[in-house]
Amino acid sequence: MAAASPSTSSPPEEGNSAAAAADDAAQQQQKKKKRKVVASAGETFTSLRGFKLVRVLNDNPRQKVVFLHAKWSGEAKSGGDGGDGERKDGEEEVEEEEGRDAVVILEKTPFRESQLPGLLSVDTELQGDLQNDIYGTYTARPPPGSSEMKATVICPATPLHLLKYTHREAFLIEETASDYRSTTLPFLQTSNFSLQWVYNILDKKAEVERVVFEDPDPETGFVLLPDLKWDQKQTNELYLIAICHKRGLKSLRDLTGEHLPLLQNILTKTQAAVLDRYGLAACRLRCYLHYQPSYYHLHVHVTHVGSEAPGGGVERAHLLGHVLRALAADPQHYALGTLTYALREGDGLLQAFQKAGRIPQ
Amino acid sequence: MAAASPSTSSPPEEGNSAAAAADDAAQQQQKKKKRKVVASAGETFTSLRGFKLVRVLNDNPRQKVVFLHAKWSGEAKSGGDGGDGERKDGEEEVEEEEGRDAVVILEKTPFRESQLPGLLSVDTELQGDLQNDIYGTYTARPPPGSSEMKATVICPATPLHLLKYTHREAFLIEETASDYRSTTLPFLQTSNFSLQWVYNILDKKAEVERVVFEDPDPETGFVLLPDLKWDQKQTNELYLIAICHKRGLKSLRDLTGEHLPLLQNILTKTQAAVLDRYGLAACRLRCYLHYQPSYYHLHVHVTHVGSEAPGGGVERAHLLGHVLRALAADPQHYALGTLTYALREGDGLLQAFQKAGRIPQ
Repeated sequence: MAAASPSTSSPPEEGNSAAAAADDAAQQQQKKKKRKVVASAGETFTSLRGFKLVRVLNDNPRQKVVFLHAKWSGEAKSGGDGGDGERKDGEEEVEEEEGRDAVVILEKTPFRESQLPGLLSVDTELQGDLQNDIYGTYTARPPPGSSEMKATVICPATPLHLLKYTHREAFLIEETASDYRSTTLPFLQTSNFSLQWVYNILDKKAEVERVVFEDPDPETGFVLLPDLKWDQKQTNELYLIAICHKRGLKSLRDLTGEHLPLLQNILTKTQAAVLDRYGLAACRLRCYLHYQPSYYHLHVHVTHVGSEAPGGGVERAHLLGHVLRALAADPQHYALGTLTYALREGDGLLQAFQKAGRIPQ
Repeated sequence: MAAASPSTSSPPEEGNSAAAAADDAAQQQQKKKKRKVVASAGETFTSLRGFKLVRVLNDNPRQKVVFLHAKWSGEAKSGGDGGDGERKDGEEEVEEEEGRDAVVILEKTPFRESQLPGLLSVDTELQGDLQNDIYGTYTARPPPGSSEMKATVICPATPLHLLKYTHREAFLIEETASDYRSTTLPFLQTSNFSLQWVYNILDKKAEVERVVFEDPDPETGFVLLPDLKWDQKQTNELYLIAICHKRGLKSLRDLTGEHLPLLQNILTKTQAAVLDRYGLAACRLRCYLHYQPSYYHLHVHVTHVGSEAPGGGVERAHLLGHVLRALAADPQHYALGTLTYALREGDGLLQAFQKAGRIPQ
């Protein structure tokens, strides 16, 4: 999701509608439960003492992140040899026998340049794994103090938090125009995803100070602002979102030849605005739409072409330049054609396709 | 590259033609130099003592990998407090004043399930970074012994090794059919990339035992085998390559309506072979071509749709199902259309586009 969910609750994966829905629902459920757990919401832990592994929810070995379901028994925190936290006045007793549900996310940290001289030293022991000519691979044991990780703790966690971070199998959908009419569109219409946060941006009721560029034209205009996933520190990680002013365009599926002026305007003016603001030429930008998108108001993702964009995979992203050429050649290309995308277990749309017999149950 | 370069010399990035060429050239240069450095080629290090940082060649914070240019001074290894390596008889003196060039690649390791109970303990200290309601993020200091890394050392490294691992800026090319004829094709024809290793596979002179499936038809047949990037341990990381028997088809650009039977045959029989061998249904597979490919003999990538495939980004991958539909609608779609892809600094093809004035120098 572009500008809705707080970074602390976003897994380092591309969003999708189910995850976004789970997140929303989890936040709502959290609000309802707040009074009950208020004493421990806001708890700051000083160690992982008292957390007991239930199971691994998900593992991303490429990014060195692991998502864990743990039980936290509050008692263990007070007293003992490791904790400097004392029991607060008014802290609730833990009701569950085995402790409270928690999600613990552990992630190895990137290398910092300042650490490198310390790592390149006798203190980093090497144990040879493989040697071939000038190439050698080793298991390295770095000196203490260079092994920091990032930990995220969600405690107490609801069942929806656990669902959100659990690995879910992916399935490729080949959605024909007929599938869209009979399965996808009815699903979207009953799902009632709220677009209020998008309208707040377009109406200048929120995130006004973050806007990079705006063309106010109601038919071809748009608002350009940084995606929340980008910290705006390095332009080589640039990630902006262009949100069109026109309402009612849900996704790529709704685009026909009549939208060429809108799409061309977004491309041209975004390229100019990025050159002006960040000094990056058009050939340094990857502009694309998602299908399925994570929210159903037309928007374009703008990322640095040298970055690895989450959601930039061929099964989800459609280059804006390609969309322009396809619609120029056939105004009904997206209205009538087949579109391929992946859905994950637990996604309501996948269940709709399974019910329709288009994907094995 | 699918099945050519040794894994020890491959960076954890998608390959491209320039990197492959640099690798080949580096290997050839290495062979020429071998006699000179034979004493230290094959050296096994016991620590990173004696390596001095020159500069960071590249950094991938998402994957927690850093590529370093270091100078290795052999003297430091013998004697001292940390080394148990003794100077070998006949070892050469280091000729360079500051030591030999080396590439050192440091990569954090994925979490192992067996480590997790040890990490969830009082021994993992937390320092709070941010607390919002039930969400908290921390800097975690895990207990000693859980901070292993993977280290790869290439020593002595040639200038081409350094080039191979150096970060290079990316540029997006919008290649028209005219660009292909005037710039790309002439570049490919003068580059003389060798396809001998592909022909060795097709002719059963190499990797025979790795073949998963073969259709021997000279027009529509192909060989299906695991990509070297896949260790064949987990089907959720499945990565196969289907290489067509027909010669002379360089890439997507050469495909027209007459190749529909070949492409359909590859798709259908690959899906059947993967279901038979690995138990994965068609809706679990992502089948795509690269443009530009890393070698110019037509091949199709077959990956698990749940995996993050290197080279699966929208600026390089073309879903086989989409290619089939595009050619059925317009047999000249790829011969006459515009194709978008990214090239990196130092790539000969990028230089050709810069010379042609199509990309800013």
